[in-house]
Amino acid sequence: MRKSIATVSLSGSLSEKLTAAAAAGFEGVEIFENDLIASPLTPEEVRARAADLGLAVDLYQPFRDFEAVPDALLERNLRRAESKFEVMARLGADTMLVCSSVSPDAIDDDGLAAEQLNLLAGRAERHGVRIAYEALAWGRHISTYDHAWRVVEAADHPALGTCLDSFHILSRASDPRGIEDIPGEKIFFLQLADAPLMAMDVLQWSRHYRCFPGQGGLDVAGLLAHAVRAGYRGPLSLEVFNDVFRQADAGRTALDAMRSLLALEESAGLAALPEPVVPSGFAFAELTAADSEPLISLLGSLGFARTGRHRGKPVELWEQGEARVLINTAGSDRRSGPSLAAVGLESADPAASVRRAETLLAPVVPRRRGEGEAPLDAVAGPDGTELFFCRTGSPGHPSWTDDFAPAGAAGTPGAPDDGGGTGLGTIDHVALPQPWHHFDEAALFYRSVLGLKPDESQDLADPYGLFRSLAVAGSGGTPLRIALNVAPSPEGEATRSQHIALATDDIVDTARRLRDRGTPVLPIPANYYDDLGARYELPAEQLARLREFGILYDRDGDGEFFHFYTVTVGRVFFEVVQRTGGYDGYGARNATVRLAAQHAAQLGAV
Amino acid sequence: MRKSIATVSLSGSLSEKLTAAAAAGFEGVEIFENDLIASPLTPEEVRARAADLGLAVDLYQPFRDFEAVPDALLERNLRRAESKFEVMARLGADTMLVCSSVSPDAIDDDGLAAEQLNLLAGRAERHGVRIAYEALAWGRHISTYDHAWRVVEAADHPALGTCLDSFHILSRASDPRGIEDIPGEKIFFLQLADAPLMAMDVLQWSRHYRCFPGQGGLDVAGLLAHAVRAGYRGPLSLEVFNDVFRQADAGRTALDAMRSLLALEESAGLAALPEPVVPSGFAFAELTAADSEPLISLLGSLGFARTGRHRGKPVELWEQGEARVLINTAGSDRRSGPSLAAVGLESADPAASVRRAETLLAPVVPRRRGEGEAPLDAVAGPDGTELFFCRTGSPGHPSWTDDFAPAGAAGTPGAPDDGGGTGLGTIDHVALPQPWHHFDEAALFYRSVLGLKPDESQDLADPYGLFRSLAVAGSGGTPLRIALNVAPSPEGEATRSQHIALATDDIVDTARRLRDRGTPVLPIPANYYDDLGARYELPAEQLARLREFGILYDRDGDGEFFHFYTVTVGRVFFEVVQRTGGYDGYGARNATVRLAAQHAAQLGAV
Repeated sequence: MRKSIATVSLSGSLSEKLTAAAAAGFEGVEIFENDLIASPLTPEEVRARAADLGLAVDLYQPFRDFEAVPDALLERNLRRAESKFEVMARLGADTMLVCSSVSPDAIDDDGLAAEQLNLLAGRAERHGVRIAYEALAWGRHISTYDHAWRVVEAADHPALGTCLDSFHILSRASDPRGIEDIPGEKIFFLQLADAPLMAMDVLQWSRHYRCFPGQGGLDVAGLLAHAVRAGYRGPLSLEVFNDVFRQADAGRTALDAMRSLLALEESAGLAALPEPVVPSGFAFAELTAADSEPLISLLGSLGFARTGRHRGKPVELWEQGEARVLINTAGSDRRSGPSLAAVGLESADPAASVRRAETLLAPVVPRRRGEGEAPLDAVAGPDGTELFFCRTGSPGHPSWTDDFAPAGAAGTPGAPDDGGGTGLGTIDHVALPQPWHHFDEAALFYRSVLGLKPDESQDLADPYGLFRSLAVAGSGGTPLRIALNVAPSPEGEATRSQHIALATDDIVDTARRLRDRGTPVLPIPANYYDDLGARYELPAEQLARLREFGILYDRDGDGEFFHFYTVTVGRVFFEVVQRTGGYDGYGARNATVRLAAQHAAQLGAV
Repeated sequence: MRKSIATVSLSGSLSEKLTAAAAAGFEGVEIFENDLIASPLTPEEVRARAADLGLAVDLYQPFRDFEAVPDALLERNLRRAESKFEVMARLGADTMLVCSSVSPDAIDDDGLAAEQLNLLAGRAERHGVRIAYEALAWGRHISTYDHAWRVVEAADHPALGTCLDSFHILSRASDPRGIEDIPGEKIFFLQLADAPLMAMDVLQWSRHYRCFPGQGGLDVAGLLAHAVRAGYRGPLSLEVFNDVFRQADAGRTALDAMRSLLALEESAGLAALPEPVVPSGFAFAELTAADSEPLISLLGSLGFARTGRHRGKPVELWEQGEARVLINTAGSDRRSGPSLAAVGLESADPAASVRRAETLLAPVVPRRRGEGEAPLDAVAGPDGTELFFCRTGSPGHPSWTDDFAPAGAAGTPGAPDDGGGTGLGTIDHVALPQPWHHFDEAALFYRSVLGLKPDESQDLADPYGLFRSLAVAGSGGTPLRIALNVAPSPEGEATRSQHIALATDDIVDTARRLRDRGTPVLPIPANYYDDLGARYELPAEQLARLREFGILYDRDGDGEFFHFYTVTVGRVFFEVVQRTGGYDGYGARNATVRLAAQHAAQLGAV
């Protein structure tokens, strides 16, 4: 379906907004009145600019507090409308959004509202304009979509229809099935917005917390399906008031918005995208470092062995069981230290993974493949992390591992047989800090592009502010897991850390082996264990082992979680985890202790 | 009364929190359990650190989900409590906060709750500990303070009392008068927090938006007065969960917290501070500039004349009517350009103004008075702006103007008689951008230190995010007015602007004179006037004049407001305003247009 966006959804001047909307592939815009009023461009110039960019002006909005007023006020309101019709003619807009009145002057009289809307529609018609009447969730007398429709029906004018807005309908928990009772041709416009589920005043919720469909908790796809079944064939138009999007780069927000609509059409069964290929695990994690020594030392102590050297690039492969880490020494910034730059995701069909990602506007990473190397299909995540789609060691298919020549010799550090492993055989999850303005984008990206399921968002109390964390995961017994984090403020971005969690089946045994190998482990305060003893009835012997090795503990109804951390090198640290039973979380309740311990370690306080 | 603060109210490690609380003059702290658990300090070390700093550990908190449970769970809960009593002995804390249960295991049975709390109090007593039982506003069965008190009364144990928390009581709109029915000695603890009035889920409201008393909309002083009338003589203790304070510098937050308690005691009639001397107007605004030429050119075009030169410093006095501007060329940073560094406030008693400011912990600015100069009493505002208390030209009192030697000669630019004024005779208001983490602090500062009244907070839509704005004002016909603004994010601080608004009685006349003098005025888009015509029934002639001179318009039930702006020089611009009738605002609805026009002007787009 045709795709539009309201200019209020994007940051910047009206000019910037139009440019961003066009670049993201939108075909139309809703011009938000304040954006026009504050613009140095005349309506004619806006129209020309939009036309140059291939954008139609699908809606002018909003016109407020029109209907059900005493006669004297009606005359004024009609004059006001005439003036806006003239602006719309100059803009080339043929549909005007009229919101249900919030004015104390409005009279609770549907007949009067219908009569006056009929009058307005008559005036509009003379200007070639249609009126789309919408119920605001906080409208004074008319606040539900079915009520607005009854008034429109009673007004009975060809130039009058209704506008449906998913936020106004779903925020009030109205039943959207009634949409199918409205003749499709009388639904003049459809505005779409999602929002996180919040128990707060609906006006504040609407003005500050709306987000793009798929980023919140409202069933926008279900609502869309009802509208289409009713016969609606107009634009899908995003109208999102969001404090963060107002600050973010308009170009990126517009792409995020378009991705949201593409995924929404798929969810509503209106369009078929290439099927998602849910990654089944991590092929590798790639660290970049100008100086790889600290990483090599840490990886070696964790029991990894250097097993390969890339044939064409300064990249080493380190392995332990199924856990693979690449160390890339090309082009990294020495000052920032080692960082996690890429992850390899196991895909049953890497080419199909990329097709879906491209369709959903993920930036494809230019291929840097040397002659004879295996194909490497990658896209960039919202934080710049490269996501490679891999099919590792599958007979009959090229594998990225073929590009590595065997390395390491018996008896040398990092050789596979230098004393055995430490029980760390797979990557349990990786944690990727996200840019402050793009957390909602990241959640939608991982959900739509990779087909991962988001968990509930959590607040993690760092000593210097609350982090937000959202985990996304695949399905099955050992799903692929990624934890997305965002710092309390843009200032905090420099200090955010990435990590790679490695799984063991016996965390005490692994911890003991790591101690023997000199792995630098993050010290955990004794107070934590005193509390753990009070909180859970753990056997004394087990509690003593946890305390001895700095292991953190969590449990829920499904199972237990044990975990500890290495110190941080550059921007990266490692976690060691053991899951028992069906425990599916990440030990969020221990995050405060971990974050405080990391701050203390950074200051050299412990 | 004795003053305490919960460690959760401050940012940083437990060590930093204790240091900040002590430096601000607190006598006690509540130790928040997670702060202790995450600390590398043992309880004994915390106790010693606190003692060294002169802080008592007044409360250990919280203990959760204890009461009204089945027997098997009771045993576990008692074991958990015993373990915490041991921690408290090590900490030197003698009061434990027990919150009403939120657990699904809790039984709705007041008798059982009382019985089990009695049991807990008995155990506590053996450890020399008292239990303060508090109703959480979202408690499962017990959520009001009077209900909690009935259970405590029924439990009837000397080591059991109640804890009152102003947020939990006032957020539910409970009637606090019932507090006086509780015997004072059974109120074991009083926690104080304010919050902005928000219609949202009370748990989220409590966890993210609490603020210090006087910074929100709850009547904390009234509640405190009831508690004191009941006979409460324990500590006044702040417990504030606030997303911004978590990120802010702990030292500053602690001072803000102490200021809040001092002002609260005054509001509740419990302490007499030096009376506020509400400033009656602006003595001057002081701009600093390494290169004063752009400012001189702008001031001259606005009709100001150079009338004085400071006898001992590189400072010029520029005047027009009662509006005075100082230009200081000492020690300014050339790169940032001119900025507003100080304002002079007319005070009937400058020494008394300073006494009050000092009592309320405002940093007194070191006096830089030369020999024979008038006394200059100044404190620093939260954004670093210096606030001078002045008594200008009052017979029998020294006046800061005496330190200036007359300057300017007939016929030279900037001379008083170069062609007459422009009608700008007073400073209407100044706008001071505030640091991101200190907006609530600023509101309380201007209210408590200067006795100004805050208006309602407003959101102003800049093209790149929402600003928050709060005006504070004195009383009377032409009150002193200051507009406080805060950028959408810390990133935005570099671009925030300060301004000085000058009043005229005839804005069109002033605008015409300024045009003749070549004052660079901010251009306003034509679209604004098209909308103004539609919105208000302004006479065509008047609308044409507004359009001609780029004058913005607002009105409310009390009167009208006309205003326009100069371009920005460095960080500063000027506004010209005319108020008619009793209009008391600042044209907030025009802020979007002004902010967009300023962005456009910055880019050279207009």
